[in-house]
Amino acid sequence: MSTLADHHRELVFQLFELLDAPGLLALPRFADHGAETLRAALQAAETIAAERFAPCHRASDEHEPGFDGQRITLPASTGAALRAFADAGFIAATHDAADGGMQLPLSVAMGCWGLFKAANIAIEAYATLTAGVADVIKTQGTAAQIERYLPKLLAGHWFGTMVLTEPQAGSSLGDLRSSATPQPDGRYAIRGRKLFITAGDHQITENIVHLVLARIDGAPPGVKGLSLFIVPKFKLRPDGSPGERNDVALAGLIHKLGFRGTTSAMLNFGEQGECTGELLGRPHEGLAAMFQMMNGARIGVGLGSAMVALAGYRAALDYARERRQGRLGRDVQQAPVAIVEHADVRRMLLTQKALAEGALSLALHAAWLHDLQQHASGREARERAGRLLELLTPVVKAWNSHFGTAANDLAIQVLGGYGYTRDFPVEQHWRDNRLNALHEGTNGIQALDLLGRKLFGDDGAAFGALAQEVNETIAQARAAADGGLQAQAGVLASQAGQLAEAWEALGETIRSLGHALRDDPRRALAGAWDFMQLFGHSVVGWLWLKQGLAATRALAQAEGSAADFYRGKLAAMDHFLTTELAPMQARHALLRCTEASVLDVDPAWL
Amino acid sequence: MSTLADHHRELVFQLFELLDAPGLLALPRFADHGAETLRAALQAAETIAAERFAPCHRASDEHEPGFDGQRITLPASTGAALRAFADAGFIAATHDAADGGMQLPLSVAMGCWGLFKAANIAIEAYATLTAGVADVIKTQGTAAQIERYLPKLLAGHWFGTMVLTEPQAGSSLGDLRSSATPQPDGRYAIRGRKLFITAGDHQITENIVHLVLARIDGAPPGVKGLSLFIVPKFKLRPDGSPGERNDVALAGLIHKLGFRGTTSAMLNFGEQGECTGELLGRPHEGLAAMFQMMNGARIGVGLGSAMVALAGYRAALDYARERRQGRLGRDVQQAPVAIVEHADVRRMLLTQKALAEGALSLALHAAWLHDLQQHASGREARERAGRLLELLTPVVKAWNSHFGTAANDLAIQVLGGYGYTRDFPVEQHWRDNRLNALHEGTNGIQALDLLGRKLFGDDGAAFGALAQEVNETIAQARAAADGGLQAQAGVLASQAGQLAEAWEALGETIRSLGHALRDDPRRALAGAWDFMQLFGHSVVGWLWLKQGLAATRALAQAEGSAADFYRGKLAAMDHFLTTELAPMQARHALLRCTEASVLDVDPAWL
Repeated sequence: MSTLADHHRELVFQLFELLDAPGLLALPRFADHGAETLRAALQAAETIAAERFAPCHRASDEHEPGFDGQRITLPASTGAALRAFADAGFIAATHDAADGGMQLPLSVAMGCWGLFKAANIAIEAYATLTAGVADVIKTQGTAAQIERYLPKLLAGHWFGTMVLTEPQAGSSLGDLRSSATPQPDGRYAIRGRKLFITAGDHQITENIVHLVLARIDGAPPGVKGLSLFIVPKFKLRPDGSPGERNDVALAGLIHKLGFRGTTSAMLNFGEQGECTGELLGRPHEGLAAMFQMMNGARIGVGLGSAMVALAGYRAALDYARERRQGRLGRDVQQAPVAIVEHADVRRMLLTQKALAEGALSLALHAAWLHDLQQHASGREARERAGRLLELLTPVVKAWNSHFGTAANDLAIQVLGGYGYTRDFPVEQHWRDNRLNALHEGTNGIQALDLLGRKLFGDDGAAFGALAQEVNETIAQARAAADGGLQAQAGVLASQAGQLAEAWEALGETIRSLGHALRDDPRRALAGAWDFMQLFGHSVVGWLWLKQGLAATRALAQAEGSAADFYRGKLAAMDHFLTTELAPMQARHALLRCTEASVLDVDPAWL
Repeated sequence: MSTLADHHRELVFQLFELLDAPGLLALPRFADHGAETLRAALQAAETIAAERFAPCHRASDEHEPGFDGQRITLPASTGAALRAFADAGFIAATHDAADGGMQLPLSVAMGCWGLFKAANIAIEAYATLTAGVADVIKTQGTAAQIERYLPKLLAGHWFGTMVLTEPQAGSSLGDLRSSATPQPDGRYAIRGRKLFITAGDHQITENIVHLVLARIDGAPPGVKGLSLFIVPKFKLRPDGSPGERNDVALAGLIHKLGFRGTTSAMLNFGEQGECTGELLGRPHEGLAAMFQMMNGARIGVGLGSAMVALAGYRAALDYARERRQGRLGRDVQQAPVAIVEHADVRRMLLTQKALAEGALSLALHAAWLHDLQQHASGREARERAGRLLELLTPVVKAWNSHFGTAANDLAIQVLGGYGYTRDFPVEQHWRDNRLNALHEGTNGIQALDLLGRKLFGDDGAAFGALAQEVNETIAQARAAADGGLQAQAGVLASQAGQLAEAWEALGETIRSLGHALRDDPRRALAGAWDFMQLFGHSVVGWLWLKQGLAATRALAQAEGSAADFYRGKLAAMDHFLTTELAPMQARHALLRCTEASVLDVDPAWL
């Protein structure tokens, strides 16, 4: 199988054997789909990813965006790949059929997008960013705005961006200063300096639709004074076609460590006083509107981290099966063995598998919760899914990006000196994935969001719902083990027991943190990143038990390489729970004791 | 203070307040030195590193070595910096005064070299590689060889390389195939393809002295048939000056992830049958001779990893003290605070400090053991130091490179999105440092060396000697705490207790691994990397307690910023022992149980 076919097989397991995506087809929203249309979408994505995205992976890194004084220069392969993506309907994957969309569940769309991300995450970003902008306009826009912008975005004729950061305001969005002055025609004059704008300028499409956070004159300070504006690169003529240039000037391109297929721009809005934008949604409610997109983007980041980790894993595995080096015994006359035979190499591969497939499971689970939140029958089911999704969103973003990049580090190590060269893709995976811990809110911000907001924000209802699901899985695993029909029963039972203990300890730590947060929030929040790792491992441990359970059931009917696939799942489950989750338990003691703290360390001592 | 001055201050602590480098001056070898000459050497290194190495850090990365068909192209600043390094005598830092060397202790020389590595590790590599080649020629060479090569190398007129790897033999040196055919004049015709040759070609110096591992015709297979040869790029004329080109052809340059200031070459020896070399040392004993250099290089790698980690830490600290973002409370009217005030940023800084300064302590401790092994009075003292050095060498290489790179990862995170741009040095530090886990023997190889060879190789005598030193430090820390004169006494006592428990558990795990190694070596060695991390953390924990003890004593006489320095040491000790060493204890259980193993995972399941 090709690498992308391997990823495709993995996605079929995650979506169809684990998440029950076909079960979504019972919901009215997806009634026009059948399992075969979902499978066809994945197959189309695999084909285009293999033919258009993978071949320019290295080229899009080597020829990073440049500016010749007039235009952004990009390899032609980038535009061609994105054209194929858009023409196959993938920007509109989740959108209404009435709008020309595929109306796929987000979980299945994410599966498709994941194949492109594995092949070339940096150039894929232009497309899914555009899908996110289309979502916001569809939800927040007036009928006229939807008519003007949505078809162009969904067809990929225009691409979109999200414009938040300013030089003095990165993590602290409340400090944004860009201004919006009402004009007599109902539009706004936008003025401000923005940076780190992904896809902020290029000539791939005939227009670019910027969604810009700015402050209407006289608005309150802080995040409550932010509004959202549509600011096109070329102003629209009355017939909706791009006309004269808007006053959005490229102030510079940012040269990055990786992710070089995407432009990252500094943009000046209204330097000449001629930048006009339209308000999107209600005044002063721009942050909430932007967060609709941001939350989706965070799941997308987690998905991308998982897929790049998986890409590194597959590259390392292929190498380890081919490369012959060393022997198992001391007889120098024997032929060398493939390095996958060496225990330390196998450990590194198994760890990558456990992290990457665990991360993928988490990202798709979040997308599936989004599907239920939006489209489940019954308000209670929708609300429950929404609560779980809110709780898990920062985890998908931060855990996946942190441990996905750690998996990519192991891929380099498997290749040895070759892994450090640009002749193999693994160093680029490592550089590309490193961005994911930073953009769409740094991982530190995600950890504060989880511990400071999400965990206790609803009196712990979301965590309670999650713990209930975990307990159900544990009970199912024990029941399957009690059935005693499988050779894997022992592993399943012992790992179910281990997971149960881990979640009991987690509950205890959360109670302790709850007290600490009431007593001294700053001190309690100092442990936010430790908590993120522990919580993420506990959640992914649960998803691995689910994967192990599904694999155990499937193994009863499988033979040959199909059976190998499921045995690999059981091995990775065991590896994750034993070598990742168990050692992580040591963090409980640290988190329950907030007496000593980095806060007691005077910055002058550093 | 400038960054290099900060590093210099740290080195003075490590060498003069912790290791007692001045105590080495009592040994005959160093009798001509005084504390002031050691300090002067460090000062000279700081000045040249700041003036010549730091300014071209980014340029040497951006303009990586190229080949124009005739010559290797490198920025002129690289040659100029290395000229200043050599002219100040730093290549000859440890060599005999009679040979024109400074005759410094290796520990102090490493301190000097460390400043260059912090400023620009990639270009510094040309120089210390040359120092290593000079060492081998001095030790293994005939009088005539020493006369021909040593002065040129020590003066930096010629640079040196170590030439081991072949396409089919990286980690497995026993599979090297390059051949050496005796010639009538006593020299050898060398033939073979070599790659990953650091500094393998350039025009910085008028000649390059390759030390090449090859197999004399008819030699036994495996590592026992390898001999070492001096192969100059330009053959020497009878007067010793470089003459006609030797048959060493550049087959290509390797394009790397980082460390781009150094050429990494593929070289073909004897393609035209005209490559001649001289045997260095005895036939079939080439690997031992090369390992003299390799062991030094491994300590150098560990030192470099520590210094690049320290460079990242300082860059992140400077940024965190300047950059204002967010507030401690919710009042949006308040001015933003420097991000060092945020707990999560302070955690990341303190972790970097604990890892980088711990790694530095370990590298310099190894260099100091080398000084004692070579020059201590009394055979017993020399042998004891030698045993300890052998045990610790793989740890210096592997622990430092792994955790040094982890520290650099945190530096990126402190800078947020800016850390991902090439406008700041932290992304380059991360890329540069990543090589250190791979070259001079991958970290997996180091872990096998530690667990499979060094730990039990001398019936555990080295470990016994190390444990004894650890216990002495614990006793000293407890005595200092009992003195009760310091506010820090409580921390010192509790951390001494924690370290004692950790070492007790380590001893128990080592006993368990000893049994496992006898029963089933392959299964026991599968835990080698886990053991490396645990052992390294235990050793660095000990060195942190030593640092804490030295800081406690110094604090009694210190005030102002001098006192801040020592308080920072105590905070970092506490942080390392509490947040690094304590959680690492969870690995004991994993290591003591070898029942489940990656070896039970069939590669077909991956």
